Amino acid sequence: MLGNGTKPAGRSVTSKVVSILNAFSPVHPELSLGELARRAGLPVSTTYRLASELVDWGGLERADGSGYRIGLRLWEVGSLSPRSKTLNELVLPFMQDLYEVTHQNVHLAVREGREALYVERVTGHRSVTVKSRRGGRLPLHATGVGKVLLAYASRADREEVLATPLKRFTPYTIVAPGLLRQALREVRRTGVAYAREEMTVGRTSIAVPVIDRTNQAVAALSIVLPSTSPAVDRLEPALRTAGRCASRQLRGATVPLSTDGE
Amino acid sequence: MLGNGTKPAGRSVTSKVVSILNAFSPVHPELSLGELARRAGLPVSTTYRLASELVDWGGLERADGSGYRIGLRLWEVGSLSPRSKTLNELVLPFMQDLYEVTHQNVHLAVREGREALYVERVTGHRSVTVKSRRGGRLPLHATGVGKVLLAYASRADREEVLATPLKRFTPYTIVAPGLLRQALREVRRTGVAYAREEMTVGRTSIAVPVIDRTNQAVAALSIVLPSTSPAVDRLEPALRTAGRCASRQLRGATVPLSTDGE
Repeated sequence: MLGNGTKPAGRSVTSKVVSILNAFSPVHPELSLGELARRAGLPVSTTYRLASELVDWGGLERADGSGYRIGLRLWEVGSLSPRSKTLNELVLPFMQDLYEVTHQNVHLAVREGREALYVERVTGHRSVTVKSRRGGRLPLHATGVGKVLLAYASRADREEVLATPLKRFTPYTIVAPGLLRQALREVRRTGVAYAREEMTVGRTSIAVPVIDRTNQAVAALSIVLPSTSPAVDRLEPALRTAGRCASRQLRGATVPLSTDGE
Repeated sequence: MLGNGTKPAGRSVTSKVVSILNAFSPVHPELSLGELARRAGLPVSTTYRLASELVDWGGLERADGSGYRIGLRLWEVGSLSPRSKTLNELVLPFMQDLYEVTHQNVHLAVREGREALYVERVTGHRSVTVKSRRGGRLPLHATGVGKVLLAYASRADREEVLATPLKRFTPYTIVAPGLLRQALREVRRTGVAYAREEMTVGRTSIAVPVIDRTNQAVAALSIVLPSTSPAVDRLEPALRTAGRCASRQLRGATVPLSTDGE
């Protein structure tokens, strides 16, 4: 029996399970028992017991040696998330079309707090390597998708991000709130965002909003390509077109995608 | 896919959290509190308390009205699963190439117990609609990927599946264990599996194994197309080529993908 005698100071078993899952990250996809306990902030014995239960379920898997990693069953349950699933099913074919025309990295991201969460990516052998990956997060102020999501967020959410220190990734990252505010105004006016070497030197991203039936920018669609590519000046119309196609498709969707008002 | 119903006292909190997550399925992506409690086999009050904690974390989200659905945070944690992530990063570009050459549905599946779990799918507007979707499961005996995964499984695992009643989906589903055993022998001999209208009338799938550095078929790659398409007789070499490219790529991977011996 868990959860009766061993509760220290109000921490529920659910929150301990959550801490164990939260301990994994793109930088720490595999953890030893000791590391897992330390990152979860739990005693080793508790960690072992909870992790074993999660292994039995398939939410965690044993890694080679003595480690743990996220299991395929957790991925399977997570893939039921209507936000990722609906975006995936409705928007992916248009991303596919865009990739086929451009052969550049095509990304779809949603806003999660102060970051852009990449929910979908189409890439091939001819695309350049980029920092974003499916399930990864990047900051809003330095990426094309992030600038779109920030530009179309509520004023309150936008000002909250602008009020935090903005990290400089390259000499071109916009870190002055006033300049970023002005850039976002321009994004709203034109309907497109450029991030020119603001996240990674040598890479430019172009992004447009994907609008759902509640008229909210629930996601941003982008192309990332080498800054020196002549295509930087040519692909905006193709991207805008794909963004409009995806928005049109979403407006027909029965599952609402925004989580506003919760 | 359901939790084991109503286990009496002695049920740990972790197992209750797992039951709540297990209650969601492709057929039940959104559940009311009452449905969630019933499917998890828990009292409504317990369900409400645990679900609220999961909502605070982001693992569940409130749906419109009074329902619950899987949250984007759970999808994000699940996407850290090295098996799905490594397959995704290493194999997806080859799937992309295959899609671009064929414009048919391209699938990647792994074996999870007695089912094929679809971990990746590339599809576009020109592909036919199919039953499989990312994160979905289909039976091993009636699909191309399933027949490959079964053919290359250990004899014990294979015989276990052959010993269970095999469901008939169409008049063409192979349900006689002897015939299926013979078909699987042929798959091992030729290195390719065909499922001709065995899952869905009008659809044929062709599948090949993806072999990792431990020489195990960790996944199966397939194309699904209309049975009447002339491409049915033409695409096997392209699929075989992509399967070999993907296998070659996996052999260089540092993350082991098989879970055998655990």
